[in-house]
Amino acid sequence: MNKFVYSFTEGNKSMKSMLGGKGANLAEMKKIGLPVPAGFTVTTEACNKYYEDGEEIETHIVDEILEHVAKIEEETNKVLGSNENPLLVSVRSGAAISMPGMMDTILNLGLNDETVKVLWEKTNNKEFAYDCYKRFIQMFSDVVLGIEKYNFDSINNNEDDIEVIIEQYKKIVKKETKKEFPQDPKEQLMMAIRAVFDSWNNQRAIIYRKINNIPDEIGTAVNVQAMVFGNMGETSGTGVAFTRNPSTGEKVLFGEFLTNAQGEDVVAGIRTPKDISELRDVMPELYEEFVGITKLLEDHYRDMQDIEFTFEDKKLYLLQTRTGKRTAKAAIKIATDLVEEKVINKEEALLRIEIDKLDQLLHPTFKEDFLKDATKMAKGIGASPGAASGRVYFTAEDVVREAEKGERIMLVRQETSPEDIEGMIKAEGVLTVHGGMTSHAAVVARGMGKCCVVGCGELSINEKAKTLTANDIEIKEGDYISIDGASGVVYKGLVETEATKLTDDFETIMNWADEIKRLGIRANADNERDAKVAIELGAKGIGLCRTEHMFFDEERINTVRHMIIAEGIEERKEALDKLLPFQRKDFVEIFNVMKELPVTVRLLDPPLHEFLPHGEEDIKNLSQILGYDYEMLKERVESLKEFNPMLGHRGCRLAITYPEIYVMQVRAIMQAAIEVSKSNEFTVNPEIMVPLVGDVTELKIIKDLIINEIEKVFEEEDVRIDYKVGTMIEVPRAALTSDEIAEEADFFSYGTNDLTQTTLAFSRDDSGKFINEYRNKNIFEKDPFEVLDTKGVGKLIEISSDLARKTKKNIKLGVCGEHGGNPQSIEFINKLDIDYVSCSPYRIPKARLASAVAVIKEKNR
Amino acid sequence: MNKFVYSFTEGNKSMKSMLGGKGANLAEMKKIGLPVPAGFTVTTEACNKYYEDGEEIETHIVDEILEHVAKIEEETNKVLGSNENPLLVSVRSGAAISMPGMMDTILNLGLNDETVKVLWEKTNNKEFAYDCYKRFIQMFSDVVLGIEKYNFDSINNNEDDIEVIIEQYKKIVKKETKKEFPQDPKEQLMMAIRAVFDSWNNQRAIIYRKINNIPDEIGTAVNVQAMVFGNMGETSGTGVAFTRNPSTGEKVLFGEFLTNAQGEDVVAGIRTPKDISELRDVMPELYEEFVGITKLLEDHYRDMQDIEFTFEDKKLYLLQTRTGKRTAKAAIKIATDLVEEKVINKEEALLRIEIDKLDQLLHPTFKEDFLKDATKMAKGIGASPGAASGRVYFTAEDVVREAEKGERIMLVRQETSPEDIEGMIKAEGVLTVHGGMTSHAAVVARGMGKCCVVGCGELSINEKAKTLTANDIEIKEGDYISIDGASGVVYKGLVETEATKLTDDFETIMNWADEIKRLGIRANADNERDAKVAIELGAKGIGLCRTEHMFFDEERINTVRHMIIAEGIEERKEALDKLLPFQRKDFVEIFNVMKELPVTVRLLDPPLHEFLPHGEEDIKNLSQILGYDYEMLKERVESLKEFNPMLGHRGCRLAITYPEIYVMQVRAIMQAAIEVSKSNEFTVNPEIMVPLVGDVTELKIIKDLIINEIEKVFEEEDVRIDYKVGTMIEVPRAALTSDEIAEEADFFSYGTNDLTQTTLAFSRDDSGKFINEYRNKNIFEKDPFEVLDTKGVGKLIEISSDLARKTKKNIKLGVCGEHGGNPQSIEFINKLDIDYVSCSPYRIPKARLASAVAVIKEKNR
Repeated sequence: MNKFVYSFTEGNKSMKSMLGGKGANLAEMKKIGLPVPAGFTVTTEACNKYYEDGEEIETHIVDEILEHVAKIEEETNKVLGSNENPLLVSVRSGAAISMPGMMDTILNLGLNDETVKVLWEKTNNKEFAYDCYKRFIQMFSDVVLGIEKYNFDSINNNEDDIEVIIEQYKKIVKKETKKEFPQDPKEQLMMAIRAVFDSWNNQRAIIYRKINNIPDEIGTAVNVQAMVFGNMGETSGTGVAFTRNPSTGEKVLFGEFLTNAQGEDVVAGIRTPKDISELRDVMPELYEEFVGITKLLEDHYRDMQDIEFTFEDKKLYLLQTRTGKRTAKAAIKIATDLVEEKVINKEEALLRIEIDKLDQLLHPTFKEDFLKDATKMAKGIGASPGAASGRVYFTAEDVVREAEKGERIMLVRQETSPEDIEGMIKAEGVLTVHGGMTSHAAVVARGMGKCCVVGCGELSINEKAKTLTANDIEIKEGDYISIDGASGVVYKGLVETEATKLTDDFETIMNWADEIKRLGIRANADNERDAKVAIELGAKGIGLCRTEHMFFDEERINTVRHMIIAEGIEERKEALDKLLPFQRKDFVEIFNVMKELPVTVRLLDPPLHEFLPHGEEDIKNLSQILGYDYEMLKERVESLKEFNPMLGHRGCRLAITYPEIYVMQVRAIMQAAIEVSKSNEFTVNPEIMVPLVGDVTELKIIKDLIINEIEKVFEEEDVRIDYKVGTMIEVPRAALTSDEIAEEADFFSYGTNDLTQTTLAFSRDDSGKFINEYRNKNIFEKDPFEVLDTKGVGKLIEISSDLARKTKKNIKLGVCGEHGGNPQSIEFINKLDIDYVSCSPYRIPKARLASAVAVIKEKNR
Repeated sequence: MNKFVYSFTEGNKSMKSMLGGKGANLAEMKKIGLPVPAGFTVTTEACNKYYEDGEEIETHIVDEILEHVAKIEEETNKVLGSNENPLLVSVRSGAAISMPGMMDTILNLGLNDETVKVLWEKTNNKEFAYDCYKRFIQMFSDVVLGIEKYNFDSINNNEDDIEVIIEQYKKIVKKETKKEFPQDPKEQLMMAIRAVFDSWNNQRAIIYRKINNIPDEIGTAVNVQAMVFGNMGETSGTGVAFTRNPSTGEKVLFGEFLTNAQGEDVVAGIRTPKDISELRDVMPELYEEFVGITKLLEDHYRDMQDIEFTFEDKKLYLLQTRTGKRTAKAAIKIATDLVEEKVINKEEALLRIEIDKLDQLLHPTFKEDFLKDATKMAKGIGASPGAASGRVYFTAEDVVREAEKGERIMLVRQETSPEDIEGMIKAEGVLTVHGGMTSHAAVVARGMGKCCVVGCGELSINEKAKTLTANDIEIKEGDYISIDGASGVVYKGLVETEATKLTDDFETIMNWADEIKRLGIRANADNERDAKVAIELGAKGIGLCRTEHMFFDEERINTVRHMIIAEGIEERKEALDKLLPFQRKDFVEIFNVMKELPVTVRLLDPPLHEFLPHGEEDIKNLSQILGYDYEMLKERVESLKEFNPMLGHRGCRLAITYPEIYVMQVRAIMQAAIEVSKSNEFTVNPEIMVPLVGDVTELKIIKDLIINEIEKVFEEEDVRIDYKVGTMIEVPRAALTSDEIAEEADFFSYGTNDLTQTTLAFSRDDSGKFINEYRNKNIFEKDPFEVLDTKGVGKLIEISSDLARKTKKNIKLGVCGEHGGNPQSIEFINKLDIDYVSCSPYRIPKARLASAVAVIKEKNR
């Protein structure tokens, strides 16, 4: 028979999937001789079995649990429910992947009307004993019995006689559950374990897993552990510490503690804890012991640790250690430091960085100029760096509602709880009055890379009036505030932001990634500004320069419209001639930034009617500007409408019917390339890309057109430069006939956005109506527009690249859809015979790192 | 060195690709001893070389030609240009594939101012000699010198002195070409040969090749042959005869002749020729000889022959024989007769029938007499064959109203939508300005076997004035027009039609086809009437029964609309409950016709908004009928609109979000199947098909839903019947993951219409804007919605069927797109491991024959 329960003495850190992270690490600490209270872990398998068995714990598992309780009793010399020496235990959840605050914890289990008295007697501390019992009833009621917290709000906690308070608590339990509060500790224990199993499927845990891509099937373990008490007076306490600063990565012990408190008090943020360094002053020996242990743990785990501890009457106990969550900035510093300290190698360092969090480093900070004039309103603790502005709302629901209107919203709360998750996701930033660096708000916001300030006690929230005040400044619901998640400063009003500067450590990491990665990285950029960002962030070229955005410029749009509605080729050419200098200027600017790096310019792609005016008013205006008859113009606009524009008259189909458009664009590109090359030391490297090709003949016809025009430009300018002509592969037929198309192409670029639309027959613009249902029903694990659908789209890319290489071994192959910046997709692309990926400029660091990680993972496999 | 010229004595009928059809058959006739004037053929290779060499005939080919002239001179004892015994020759084109009338012919070459006199002397017939010279100058001027015929109109051919006429002709030549009419016969000959080569690329030849799918690269041969003269008096003459009647197939000699005439006279129609039987009276011996030769030729070629002959002073010469073109009716009769006569076997008989022409037998045609006088107004795409006349109306409502008065009505629309269905049913024919072979109008009309012309861009509809105009012809509402659904021609006014009856020979051919073919043939049918036609024409099941057409019925549409806009599942179910009896009735009717044959019912497919009212007025009406708030209804209709409905919320995606719709449909199908099976000797064979599946999980979820509902019905009815659940494969991703999808499917049906749209990223409804340009530029040889795109869509089907068979060896695979009725596509499908094709009822005979022909061709390869 399977073993479903493990003593801490039986496990080790490699058993996470069975014991959960917490259980495995408690066992590991026990193994290396650290002071861990006795306990055991009910495995994740037991949790899964519980669900398989219709939410029942089988008898033999119950027996196994009770056997292990007996072992704790033996080790502690206490007995559960004993009226002489009662054992109290904590019951905590712990999945293989950390889900902080998502599931439930119960402390002080084992207390009842009798044992509480024994505890009082033994500690000679009635206050303490009944405080424990009160906490226990409260937690048990909330977590196990499902009695909402507000039911207890009416109780006056200032009542002198704590026994009276306890009676009131128990009455509420009786009223709500129609039963007495359970007095049998074994019954309490089994109920608590069931409740932890149940909490695996509470709403916030499900959402957290979805957001963090944690599989639903892994289940949670349950840790049952002898209690030690941080709330046994001023020589007791509890705290949390990181072996390095989780916000900056600096190598200093970083943490907080509270005396005379239990763990929840630190996390809940009701009392503001003290900095860990102050522990030295209070209890120097204990502090030194703790510091020694933190070093030992970091060395042992070879990574920054997040450690929970409690001291009971000056005796230190460790309750948890785990790899500490950190900001991207800290992750990078810690990784580079650990390499320097020779603890890990470069490859390990790269694997240590959460790729998706790199975005944080690129997040904006406030513009200095604006900051000068900004009104400081208050200062709290900077809990998750970045800068954010938004309209103030005081509940998660309000935030969600307003954010969905497209507003930038700031969530402001006394403190956050797991129920606020959705509001936190939708908010630009999070601000709380209470709580410290390890409060719920801080931990979750850092995990999300969301700007967050906590513990801003100067602020006061009036929930009725819906106002926020501090230092005589009043902010009403809906007004703007701005917060600095690094410094903790809160500003009145909107403060403009700008991009951050990157650190040397960041450069180091990126360089290591570049040494290891195989894929080239390019940017999707269609203007000078984006091109500059791309270069700064390490792009080695532009993989997709769209030309249609340039057409939307206010100065040009009416000329574009003229070109579209032109009657016949002559009129169209006239309009195109006017557009030529604009396009040339665009390319000159981009080429000047990119220098000799390749720039892949995609010729006009979208359906023409996208450029046309829509309302009656717009059409009237345009008819006046162009001197067209209104009715005629309206009819022409009407006739350009399409049923399915995505599959309509667009891409290279435009050039098959109106070749003159591409001719103009090609002329602009080559004139610009020559102009820039002539006045510089470098030679521009243009790559002309034809979109939406489905058949080699299309490409052949258009390529002839392109080459013909380029030859004209060369003759006029009396100079030649190298160039390439290639095509997007974004239509399934193009992928399937890539052997033929490769004959005519110098390069392919997989346009995975469109290829996803056609391969799945999924309109990006319309899938909103059903995509949620598709994710809920697990038809798609991920949104296929975010993560490449490897089975369909990926397979086509594989078929295509194989066919293309057969025809032309050295054809250059790239991916330029959104997936080019998605780590999971990059891992897949890295396995194919693809030369580069191209993504939006701010995703380039992610792409560089992801490409390196893909290589490392491939090697480690 | 290659040989570029062949004497008739050197060739035979198997050398068509080199000698052209005419040249090869002249050689063959020579070989079997028939009286063919001496001559030679300049090969098609010489023609291709001519184009390769920049439209020059190389010297060595010129030499080769002259050597062969010498051989004719030797054989005839005449000499080109001789003033004693001048040789005259004809110069005729002749490609490997017959292109009647498309290229040029020159007779009497060799005549000049001198030789004409010799001819006069030798024949003692001045009239004859100068008539020949005149004809020669005329033809040579037209064909070789490019002088338009009207230039000669001013000449009075009644002038007594024919020499004067000749002089006038020559003057015009001089005036137009600035040169004298060439007098050197060898120069004449080389000029004529070049002109024939050039005629390969004249406009009408290019168009003819495009229409008839003749490759441009094959080139034409040139036949040079000693002249014989049918215009040498009343004992001379010329004629054309078919060995059987080309219109009916009857086995009687069928032809015409003229005495004292050259070939052109028969064709040109200036003199009315006599029936061939009259030749017996005029020249009985010659007639008998000719009849003998025609029999010999038919026996020799084993097929009906089309023979050109000339007699010069009672001596018979054969100038051409070829397989005679024939109507579908004649083709069938001749083929069955030849089998009966044991001349050919069944397989050969099937190969003899032009599959595309079978349509002729199933649809009414215009009466020849009326067609002669009809005024052509415009030409569109013949989308559904047949001939129809009716009064023009521009809306479905008007059509319904007028048709109910007993009028024959033509529905004329920009394009049709599902709301026009009733109008289409009531109309004689459908004509649309937009759309292609698979537009809504085309697909639905073909399904109905209704005559239809689409994409007639020359037409313009003025909806206000209610007029239809094209090429200066204006048709008012209520006026007659007539359309030819095969050729796409639109005629002004009423052209009378006649129905065709299917003959026993037709049945014989179909039975032979069934004996040979491998593919099963099913019909696309969604009502009783279509099902009956399908059975009559030989369908062995329904491969695609669409369920959405049933929803458009006037009685039901408002309930359907209610179902769509319902708030929440309960209200939706209420509406669905009302629809259930209607759907059940539909299926009862169909099952009663189809009996135990399989009926594949596709569950609801189109985007829901297609069913909703569009105009303000319609929305108002509906809001009153359903008791909904107008604004709310309008908003709901608005919210259902999609950018790309083809890729939107449709197909099985509807069932993922609103499972209750499919539940109702499945219940209707199974209740109907049980009802019909209970009251008959047979058991209905329903196959339930899920559309637009892209991932196996979609199918799995919906299949569970289906089976669950079916089990309920079985329990309620206390009976079980066999059924299948399968899926359409119409999304590329489904094709690419067919190994997974096959796990959950009893059958696949390739929906090649949608698969073409997604694989090519070509919207059926929008491709009209560029598809013509695509065909003109030879990007697509054929409209991919008409002929299966084998390289893209075909490849996906191949990938899919291979994957599916790997998972489930016996999975049933069918094709139910429009291509299922297209012979060329069937040939491709036959090669794959596909079980059946399904097509609209009237295409079933074509599909049966094409499937057999595919097998025969495969075997012969």
